[in-house]
Amino acid sequence: MSDIKTLALQCRDASQALARLSAAERRDLLRSMADALEADAEGILAANARDLRAAADKGVGTAMLDRLALDPGRLAGVAAALRDVAALPDPVGEVTRDYVRPNGIRVQKVRVPLGVIAMIYEARPNVTADAAALCIKAGNGVILRGGSEALQSNTAIAAALKRALRAAGIGDAALTLVEDLRRETMLELLQLNDIVDLAIPRGGEGLIRFVAEHARVPVIKHYKGVCHLYVDDSAELQRAVDLVVDGKVSRPAACNALETLLVHADIAPRFLPLAAAALRARGVALRGDEATRALVEGVDVAEEADYAAEYLDLVLAVRVVDSLETAIAHVQRHTSDHTEVIATGDPAHAEAFVQALRSAVVMVNASSRFSDGGELGLGAEIGISTTRLHSYGPMGLEALTVERFVVRGEGQVRG
Amino acid sequence: MSDIKTLALQCRDASQALARLSAAERRDLLRSMADALEADAEGILAANARDLRAAADKGVGTAMLDRLALDPGRLAGVAAALRDVAALPDPVGEVTRDYVRPNGIRVQKVRVPLGVIAMIYEARPNVTADAAALCIKAGNGVILRGGSEALQSNTAIAAALKRALRAAGIGDAALTLVEDLRRETMLELLQLNDIVDLAIPRGGEGLIRFVAEHARVPVIKHYKGVCHLYVDDSAELQRAVDLVVDGKVSRPAACNALETLLVHADIAPRFLPLAAAALRARGVALRGDEATRALVEGVDVAEEADYAAEYLDLVLAVRVVDSLETAIAHVQRHTSDHTEVIATGDPAHAEAFVQALRSAVVMVNASSRFSDGGELGLGAEIGISTTRLHSYGPMGLEALTVERFVVRGEGQVRG
Repeated sequence: MSDIKTLALQCRDASQALARLSAAERRDLLRSMADALEADAEGILAANARDLRAAADKGVGTAMLDRLALDPGRLAGVAAALRDVAALPDPVGEVTRDYVRPNGIRVQKVRVPLGVIAMIYEARPNVTADAAALCIKAGNGVILRGGSEALQSNTAIAAALKRALRAAGIGDAALTLVEDLRRETMLELLQLNDIVDLAIPRGGEGLIRFVAEHARVPVIKHYKGVCHLYVDDSAELQRAVDLVVDGKVSRPAACNALETLLVHADIAPRFLPLAAAALRARGVALRGDEATRALVEGVDVAEEADYAAEYLDLVLAVRVVDSLETAIAHVQRHTSDHTEVIATGDPAHAEAFVQALRSAVVMVNASSRFSDGGELGLGAEIGISTTRLHSYGPMGLEALTVERFVVRGEGQVRG
Repeated sequence: MSDIKTLALQCRDASQALARLSAAERRDLLRSMADALEADAEGILAANARDLRAAADKGVGTAMLDRLALDPGRLAGVAAALRDVAALPDPVGEVTRDYVRPNGIRVQKVRVPLGVIAMIYEARPNVTADAAALCIKAGNGVILRGGSEALQSNTAIAAALKRALRAAGIGDAALTLVEDLRRETMLELLQLNDIVDLAIPRGGEGLIRFVAEHARVPVIKHYKGVCHLYVDDSAELQRAVDLVVDGKVSRPAACNALETLLVHADIAPRFLPLAAAALRARGVALRGDEATRALVEGVDVAEEADYAAEYLDLVLAVRVVDSLETAIAHVQRHTSDHTEVIATGDPAHAEAFVQALRSAVVMVNASSRFSDGGELGLGAEIGISTTRLHSYGPMGLEALTVERFVVRGEGQVRG
């Protein structure tokens, strides 16, 4: 048997014990994991310094080095995040349905852990602790396959967390860090569909497409966020300006940032000059269709590709549309199934927009930047799914469980 | 663009209109589909007669011919099933969560259709109507890829159902029957992960493994049911006998039939002779371990493979275990994640069994044969999932939807 298959089977075995802990025991385990991280802070930071030196020697860029870097403040943040996860309501055992059938059998739907979750991610070492905490809180074993740049940091973090597992009487294989980072080993991991219940890739679109194309295990994908704001003819002007500015500017590199602005033709002459001034004051470059360019000077031409682009930058594509229906058709054509927003004063238009679109998050008069597990009240987020299966949109603890049936009778038979 | 991709894109486009129908409109559409089937009964039965003749000429066996055959009674049953589906509660638009965040945004989770579902199935032509009805009721487009033996029947059924779609103003591509049954065309369909949201294979384990191995679209799998009954030392004797007889005998070829019986050593001397007599009176052959063979004469030796077997026949593997824990460990080792039953008089033992096992359906003092969408109150069943993702266990209409977020604010921004 290959090494990675052996590791995966050990993880699965250990995960059974994790699933059987009580909610209070899992909460205490998460707290011990946070304590262990703090106790090992010195060693973790030293390992991280070695990763940083090696990365700098390889000529890794500043942005990547920043993502890789830990310091006492960031590490304290990671431990605090673990304590936050510890305090969340435990999803395992939650009864979501409960009814009695005519023959007297009582049927419940009850949440159980998925089993074994493989996280495939890139440079950020905090993901090692964050993802492990969420998986373990929901009773799952976790196999962590991070990037090579962070291997020393990840190993030190995993060692601390494993100590907490052992202290709780759980086999520390419940948290398994893959140290063999060869691509063929990852491919083998992604083929273990009788052992691994779910793979979650976190990183750039390239990594996610690679995992999705090669996996035989189920994958929850988050490709990209081409988020739209449609400003309806009935929208309140200043509110709509606030929504476009917040959506585009508050964190342009986030997947829930706005990328395309659609404006109804009847409000465009009043709205677009105001919006353009506010956006430009914050450094945003606009690319528009002819109608936009006729209303605002100095707007670059938007090519067809601009309406499919996830800029992740201070750039916004703009188009004037003649109706709500045209706006909906534009979104349907270009949607990444992430987040779409309508600014409107007309409840019927709001409902038509919500009903017509099947994106993971559809908002009325609220910023696209709320499309986030924390902001939507999930407590924490292990990712955002843009595929309509199992979980759609920001994924919290519940998304790491599945509902199964528990039936209680008094000897009923079907006959 | 390939033909199958063109068909899939047309199905996706038409499915959008289906998703926007009201619940009443979708209910009426399902009723019209039932009417259309009845109106075309003569043509459908003639097409089925052609399929049957061709299959008989090819030397197809009696069991397969029976699965393929339609007659006026069976066709009326299919139409009646469509009307039953029409009457089920509509899952689309159901609000499963509704809360207000501290900043005043209102967050709802609302069910939406998955989008496009590909059904891959074998000889039974009734699946064409049943599966289409469930997918369409939940607002999904459906691509049907049946077996070659049933192609004439399936084409005639699909033509009737498509007429009902057109009469409702829906593009009839919302129901697409694949008439090109080459294997490479099916493989291409299973690669269309940007268009097809879910594939559901229905048939033998071979078909399901083939689909699972070649699909890049998500697949809900149902491999097999190796269902266990554990008779605890506290079980009521006659009740336990009834459960094993019903589980094994009432429909041995069903996936929810019992395949393995585990008996606590303390009750085995009283239980096993009773159970063996009752089972043998109904033609069941037993294969047991040494302890079983010491208690009941004429029991064949159970090999290790017997405890992994899905007999689908009047054969039962039996093992005597020394404790509840041993029974649980046996199930954990051999489970197909389908259905497990405990017969017990001890509530603590019942709970330990339920908590320890993560199978899709776990039952206390009820027959495994209730592990079925209809029996569990789902109204209808499109399949049974034995994979812990999205849906686990019998799948009804809800399993053909996913929850997404709808957020309503008054201009809130994140800042």
